[in-house]
Amino acid sequence: MSDHEIFEAGDVPLQCGITLRAAKLAYKTHGKLNADKSNAVIFPTRFGGRHSDNEYLIGEDKALDPRKYFIVVPNLFGNGVSSSPSNTPIPLNAGSFPGVTIYDNVLVQRRLMQEAFGVDRLALALGWSMGALQSYQWATLWPDKVERLFALCGSARCAPHNYVFLDGCRIALVTDAAFRNGFYKEPPAAGLRALGRVWAASGLSQTFYRRHMYREMGFATVEDFLVNWWEWLFQLRDANNILALIWTWQHGDLSDNPVYKGDFEKALGAITARSIVMPCNSDMYFPPEDNEYEVSRMKNAELRVIDSVWGHYAGGGRDVPSLKLIDRTIGELLAS
Amino acid sequence: MSDHEIFEAGDVPLQCGITLRAAKLAYKTHGKLNADKSNAVIFPTRFGGRHSDNEYLIGEDKALDPRKYFIVVPNLFGNGVSSSPSNTPIPLNAGSFPGVTIYDNVLVQRRLMQEAFGVDRLALALGWSMGALQSYQWATLWPDKVERLFALCGSARCAPHNYVFLDGCRIALVTDAAFRNGFYKEPPAAGLRALGRVWAASGLSQTFYRRHMYREMGFATVEDFLVNWWEWLFQLRDANNILALIWTWQHGDLSDNPVYKGDFEKALGAITARSIVMPCNSDMYFPPEDNEYEVSRMKNAELRVIDSVWGHYAGGGRDVPSLKLIDRTIGELLAS
Repeated sequence: MSDHEIFEAGDVPLQCGITLRAAKLAYKTHGKLNADKSNAVIFPTRFGGRHSDNEYLIGEDKALDPRKYFIVVPNLFGNGVSSSPSNTPIPLNAGSFPGVTIYDNVLVQRRLMQEAFGVDRLALALGWSMGALQSYQWATLWPDKVERLFALCGSARCAPHNYVFLDGCRIALVTDAAFRNGFYKEPPAAGLRALGRVWAASGLSQTFYRRHMYREMGFATVEDFLVNWWEWLFQLRDANNILALIWTWQHGDLSDNPVYKGDFEKALGAITARSIVMPCNSDMYFPPEDNEYEVSRMKNAELRVIDSVWGHYAGGGRDVPSLKLIDRTIGELLAS
Repeated sequence: MSDHEIFEAGDVPLQCGITLRAAKLAYKTHGKLNADKSNAVIFPTRFGGRHSDNEYLIGEDKALDPRKYFIVVPNLFGNGVSSSPSNTPIPLNAGSFPGVTIYDNVLVQRRLMQEAFGVDRLALALGWSMGALQSYQWATLWPDKVERLFALCGSARCAPHNYVFLDGCRIALVTDAAFRNGFYKEPPAAGLRALGRVWAASGLSQTFYRRHMYREMGFATVEDFLVNWWEWLFQLRDANNILALIWTWQHGDLSDNPVYKGDFEKALGAITARSIVMPCNSDMYFPPEDNEYEVSRMKNAELRVIDSVWGHYAGGGRDVPSLKLIDRTIGELLAS
């Protein structure tokens, strides 16, 4: 018994010039599509996440209530469930898996909605982090088909600083000689641990650490948190899959496609969805300034900043006050 | 001809329990000690810096005017000029070099001032970054001997977040198998490059990158900046020396010594120097909040926040408006 479905996307030509053959888009649905197909929501996964990781925002006690909405959670290519380095056959396996852009992902997601469900129109596109990148991409590619957009701790493109941060993570991993250009037999454990430690410093804010809030998560000391959370988390994952997602994130830009040809402002200006963009004031990846600019270029968008010391993870569900605010805001957006 | 002097400190027992035998403290002086020995200034080096790297704040056109002040610049142990992994003989060479704390450093600096110059009293202790850690240590160990303190983009101890960030840098380097536990024959180039990339993301602010300010430094693209600045900078250095300084930084705490026995508030409260503490509002290592707390516990201290997008490097001299503000502030402090 699998907890998800597979959309067989066939041969998918990618922006990088390679065709991903027999591509598989894994997804999970919650709720039922109504008769006039007006209750569809797309909620793509985030970096390192699987469909089940989105369930913190889905439930009968939540705004994303499966009794009311038909919620589709597609898995990012590279996340280990959809086509990824770890599950793709030769010759695109492991270190040869091609770069898949956000645009590539969203084109297949659109086909999933149309071909599998006959859905042409979305009540809402939403996501956290890389999920926000995908939601923005939806809203700009099919403005008249996406009624609402909720972008949580994420932006319309990867900012240069964010690119640099991600590159530090990437290089910490590939510096491990055991990585062998992606063709390892045993996981490059030292590199995965290193990546976890690098990630730890930027994912959460200075104040989070100053207040020793890792203790609330059950960790005795900073070192305990680094080993038993961050090193553990990244060692659960396949190194090539992580690198595939980092590549996708680093190349994220809603305008870098044949439709907008790199015109970032034009791509933002095309969005007509009623939009709420919600960064966190201590997020080091997606600081509010980037979203502020985006919102200023969008037609029908509002910026609402989360005040939290959880940094990027204010959007991830562990910070309860932020979680409540997020859920309330999604409810407000859906009711509008 | 050497551009610096050596203070032969003899056998120095360290806090870690190891004795650093025949320890050498390298230093440079600017100006002349006056007759009543009232014009001495100590200006210790920062992470990765040598005595010459402090000269951006010293000169006849600067507040630190060598015609008026006797400025002593001691090199941190581990920086490659004072005793360091790279220049210490067996058995404390390379990967066996012991951890030297800020306290260990400052005790030897105090001996330098007394034994080499007969100086008992300082007009000013100042420093940027790790230099600020040392200046704080001076001011709390000998409150009645340090008249003024200027702490620039630095704090009285390494905050937990800062510790985590540094650990990401450390692990990116040691993950390179060529590092061989510190006993490499050739430099661990991949690890040094990785460290440079990790450092790049936290040293400068999101806004610095968003505005492409690396172009002002002469770099065409982010990748050009990463390779031709950050990777270059760290490959100039010895890996063990870098790790020695990271260890010193991570263990920095003005109260972690026999005098204050870990009582951080007591150590801050002991400082009587007229103090100006100057963080930068976009510094990810030393955010103003840490300094704000410190100043609230000090007797005669003032917090002045630099408004700059240069992050930690607002204190380093390349950001001209900040540099002018810093120089003016040192002048004001010296005149008080």
